[in-house]
Amino acid sequence: MKIGIFYRTDYFKAAEVVYSALKDEFEISFFKDSSENFQPESNVSVVLSVGGDGTVLRTLKKVQCPVLGIKAGRLGFFSGYLLNEIDKLVKDLKSWNFIEDKRWVLRIESEGLNYFAINDAVLLKNVEQKIVDFLVEMKDGTFYYHADGLVVSTPTGSSAYALALGGPIMLPNVEAFEITPIAPQFLATRSLVIPSSEKIRISANEPVNLVLDGDILFRTNEIFVKKCTRNIVLLRPKTYDFSTSIKEKIGYGKLILGNGNQV
Amino acid sequence: MKIGIFYRTDYFKAAEVVYSALKDEFEISFFKDSSENFQPESNVSVVLSVGGDGTVLRTLKKVQCPVLGIKAGRLGFFSGYLLNEIDKLVKDLKSWNFIEDKRWVLRIESEGLNYFAINDAVLLKNVEQKIVDFLVEMKDGTFYYHADGLVVSTPTGSSAYALALGGPIMLPNVEAFEITPIAPQFLATRSLVIPSSEKIRISANEPVNLVLDGDILFRTNEIFVKKCTRNIVLLRPKTYDFSTSIKEKIGYGKLILGNGNQV
Repeated sequence: MKIGIFYRTDYFKAAEVVYSALKDEFEISFFKDSSENFQPESNVSVVLSVGGDGTVLRTLKKVQCPVLGIKAGRLGFFSGYLLNEIDKLVKDLKSWNFIEDKRWVLRIESEGLNYFAINDAVLLKNVEQKIVDFLVEMKDGTFYYHADGLVVSTPTGSSAYALALGGPIMLPNVEAFEITPIAPQFLATRSLVIPSSEKIRISANEPVNLVLDGDILFRTNEIFVKKCTRNIVLLRPKTYDFSTSIKEKIGYGKLILGNGNQV
Repeated sequence: MKIGIFYRTDYFKAAEVVYSALKDEFEISFFKDSSENFQPESNVSVVLSVGGDGTVLRTLKKVQCPVLGIKAGRLGFFSGYLLNEIDKLVKDLKSWNFIEDKRWVLRIESEGLNYFAINDAVLLKNVEQKIVDFLVEMKDGTFYYHADGLVVSTPTGSSAYALALGGPIMLPNVEAFEITPIAPQFLATRSLVIPSSEKIRISANEPVNLVLDGDILFRTNEIFVKKCTRNIVLLRPKTYDFSTSIKEKIGYGKLILGNGNQV
C-alpha cells in the first residue's frame, strides 16, 4: 500500500512524527508541504493530511483517493486521528479499519471553467463595493437577495461559513444545498434549503469575488452550481460519528448539565 | 365528479358563494362546517376547503383525496384560488387543469397511537413547567436540547412554526426533516436538518404537550417520528409555484427595490 503525506508548513515537526511512524511499515509515495505545487501520482491508496481542516481541504483537491486528517489545527471537522494516536493509526491502516466517510460536493461552473467545492461556493463583494443584487434561478423558482454576498454550501459546509451566518446544521447525508445570504437587506436572513438534484444559476448585477472553500478565484457575475458526480472520501476511526463531532466541536446538541437533568 | 366542500364557521357566506357556483355543474357530496364531526364518503374526487391554512389542514386530515383551498383567511400557503376566481375554478375543475402539489408528511407514534402531521409535530412544556431536557435519537446520532420545546417539521412546515423560531426555508421537495428547538439554553438555537429516511425518537425528562399541526393531543414523554408512506395532494392553479408563494406571503427572496437595481 502506497501512502502519501501532505502537511501544513508550520506543522512540519508533527508531520515528521507521522512520517517516522509509517516509513518502516508502508511505502511512502511522497512527504510534501501542502502549499507546494506538487501533483501526486495516482496509485496512492490514501493520503494523510497533517494540519487543520484547511490542510485536509487542500489535500482533497489534489488527490482522488481517500484522505485521512491528522489533527494539528484548531477545529478539525475533517480530521480522523490525533497526533498521539499514531500507533492506533498504523494498526488501522494495516487492516484498513476505517469508516469511509463519503461526502458529496458541489460542481461550480463560471467563466467557462469548472471547479468543485467541498464546503461552499461564496460570491462576495469587495469592501469598497456597494450592496449587490443577486438572482438565484432554478427549476423550483427564482429568488432575489440584496446582500453583501451569497453562500451555497453542501451539508458538509453547513458547519463552516454558513453556520457563522446563521444557517442550520445539516447532517452530512442530507441531499440538499443550502443558500445563505451574507448581510441581506429586508430581513431575508434565513437560509434556503434546496434539493441536491437542482441546477442553480446565480447572477449578480456586477462582478463579485468567487471564493471556493476559502480560495479566492476571480471576479464574476455568474456561476452555475449543481451536485458533482464525484464524491470525496474521508477516512475516520470506527468510533467516529458526526453527531459526536458536532457536539465536541461547537457544543450543538451536547448534554451540558450534570446529574439530575439526564433524560 | 363528486365534490365536497368544507368551510370555516365564520366563512359560511363565502362558502355559500362557492356552493352556488358549483351546484349546477357538479354533484356536491357534502357542504359542511369543518369543525363538525363529519366523515365524508370515500368516493369524492376533490374537497374544496373555504378558509385559511388551518381549514385546509383540518380538511386534509378528514379526507384521502386531493384538497383545493379557497382563500378566505389571512396567509394561505395551502390555498389555490381566491374567492373572486370561482369562474376560473369551475372551468379548471371541468378539465382538471391543476398542478397536483404532492407533499410528504410525518408519521408520529406516541403512547401506542399513530398520527400523521403535515406541517409539524411539536413537543411543548406548559407555562408552569420548568425547562425540559429533550433527547433526540436516530441512526445518525444523538442530540440533547435543554429547551421549552422541540419542533419536528416537514419542508411544508418550514414556513410555519419553525420559521417563526428562526429555522431555514426548505423547498417542498427537499427530502429532509427539520428539528428546531423552542427557547433552547446554551445558544443551541439552530435547526438541525435530517434526511427524511431517518427514524427519530424524541424523549423528554418529563411529560410535555404533543401538538400536531396546531392541535393539542395529550401529554407524553416519548414520540417516534418518521416519514409517512402516505402523501397529501393540494390542487393548485397551473400558474402556481412555491417560490412565488413564499415571496408573496413573507417577502423572502422578493425583488423589493425598483428599477436600476434589477439583476
